[in-house]
Amino acid sequence: MHQTKESIANYFRTLQDSICQQLEAADGGTFREDAWERPGGGGGRSRVIRGNHIEKGGVNFSAVHGPMPEKITKALGVAPGDFFATGVSIVLHPRSPMVPIIHMNVRYFEMTEETWWFGGGIDLTPHYVVPADAQYFHEQLKNVCDQHHPEYYPRFKQWADDYFYLKHRDETRGIGGIFFDRLSHSDEFGQEDRFAFVRDVGELFAPLYIELMGRHKDEEYDDREKQWQLLRRGRYVEFNLVWDKGTKFGLDTNGRTESILMSMPPTANWEYMHEPKLNSKERETLDLLKKGVDWLHLNAQ
Amino acid sequence: MHQTKESIANYFRTLQDSICQQLEAADGGTFREDAWERPGGGGGRSRVIRGNHIEKGGVNFSAVHGPMPEKITKALGVAPGDFFATGVSIVLHPRSPMVPIIHMNVRYFEMTEETWWFGGGIDLTPHYVVPADAQYFHEQLKNVCDQHHPEYYPRFKQWADDYFYLKHRDETRGIGGIFFDRLSHSDEFGQEDRFAFVRDVGELFAPLYIELMGRHKDEEYDDREKQWQLLRRGRYVEFNLVWDKGTKFGLDTNGRTESILMSMPPTANWEYMHEPKLNSKERETLDLLKKGVDWLHLNAQ
Repeated sequence: MHQTKESIANYFRTLQDSICQQLEAADGGTFREDAWERPGGGGGRSRVIRGNHIEKGGVNFSAVHGPMPEKITKALGVAPGDFFATGVSIVLHPRSPMVPIIHMNVRYFEMTEETWWFGGGIDLTPHYVVPADAQYFHEQLKNVCDQHHPEYYPRFKQWADDYFYLKHRDETRGIGGIFFDRLSHSDEFGQEDRFAFVRDVGELFAPLYIELMGRHKDEEYDDREKQWQLLRRGRYVEFNLVWDKGTKFGLDTNGRTESILMSMPPTANWEYMHEPKLNSKERETLDLLKKGVDWLHLNAQ
Repeated sequence: MHQTKESIANYFRTLQDSICQQLEAADGGTFREDAWERPGGGGGRSRVIRGNHIEKGGVNFSAVHGPMPEKITKALGVAPGDFFATGVSIVLHPRSPMVPIIHMNVRYFEMTEETWWFGGGIDLTPHYVVPADAQYFHEQLKNVCDQHHPEYYPRFKQWADDYFYLKHRDETRGIGGIFFDRLSHSDEFGQEDRFAFVRDVGELFAPLYIELMGRHKDEEYDDREKQWQLLRRGRYVEFNLVWDKGTKFGLDTNGRTESILMSMPPTANWEYMHEPKLNSKERETLDLLKKGVDWLHLNAQ
């Protein structure tokens, strides 16, 4: 049976609530909400936190609909008509350079009962790559994926490597994670199966990040580590503004700018020709920002 | 007589020297130079200053050549063949929020003696718009333009308004200036006329910026003004990474990343839903970041 788009939007709205509650409990701060309407149809709830450990975080829900511009139906290869799109989108920038940046997105798009798909993913951008954390992070993602299909993790892990990539730096944004798009019906999967997978991804997010934050939020750090964080945030900005298709699409089609750019860090730095010293931990991190790293077995490599 | 591409590149190299000397004299700091070679042919000299008044500034010269990718000859509407491109490109980010950011570019592109053009411009991004400065800045540009053609200033001023525009903010990047591209031979102009104009633009740059810097570099400012500067720099980043065609083209075609991104500020901030207070000077500045402002007669409007 086809889940209605409204019921999927309702689920995403509840997911936003649940994630915000869990993050507030872990951080001690509180989210501020802006409800907004889209002139063309629908709207959303943007929530922002400036917390104790999360310096700037956004947890967005939206459910928008309306006639689909012909340019876009053509690009998507679908028949003209009305669209409906709903999802939750998150970026958290921690205060401490020892805690990673994280991004999560789950979304559903529908034109008709036959033309629909899910997309999303979770990816992690540590300022300093900690192999044990990277392994834990990817194990958790693999675990959720494996409950749905043995090919999900390898496929979506590679997809994340390919997507979260700064071509002009030959660097990945971070240690990747999973990324998927246009998951629709197939021989093996119906809408309910895809939805169940996306729910599991969405519900993994908060406990996973809270675990990683808990491991590092009270670690001491010095000015050198803070400066490195600001440079890494500069790379985050570069990825989001130069390469991220969602950001570009949103800014180019009169999306809600403040919600789209909630992903920007509070502060970022750029330094001409910055090169970490040989054998420094900054250099070690840079050397790991490559496609195709097997994070599950990094220590054995 | 056709000026050779080598002689034009030589002129640009001299222009870089002259501008750097003038800026060093005004700032008290010194440029550091990186000479680099392009694997496909040619190279450049990137010069960066971290000075007393210029917090981060780049003055780039390059002269590159090689076979033109077919994708690009098609986009440009020219016949396949080798290209030659040379120019000087500058962005200066001052320490003080009372001093404006400035950008200048002069460039020459040639495929054959028949297929060539000049491009470039100067535009100003004050953190706080000062009407008398804006008027002075545009008068100086108009003066140079008028020496070459009465239609240059109005055309190139509008071109700058249209180009330096953040569609997703409905804001211009600053108070504009002049922008021009593909100035080639025409009924009225030969190569020497276009080159003479571009030389005048290039030579106007240093005295113009030094005058504006001198007006404000010793003004006091407080934390609120510094914070506003950091937010305005965030917008500068947004323009350069989302909308600037030159940046995008460079990053997408394996240009020298560190030279292209010399335009990035040393530090930039983002704040969700920042809104300057009514009647504040920040609000006044925002209200002036629109296309079509007649800066020459702002006080009379």
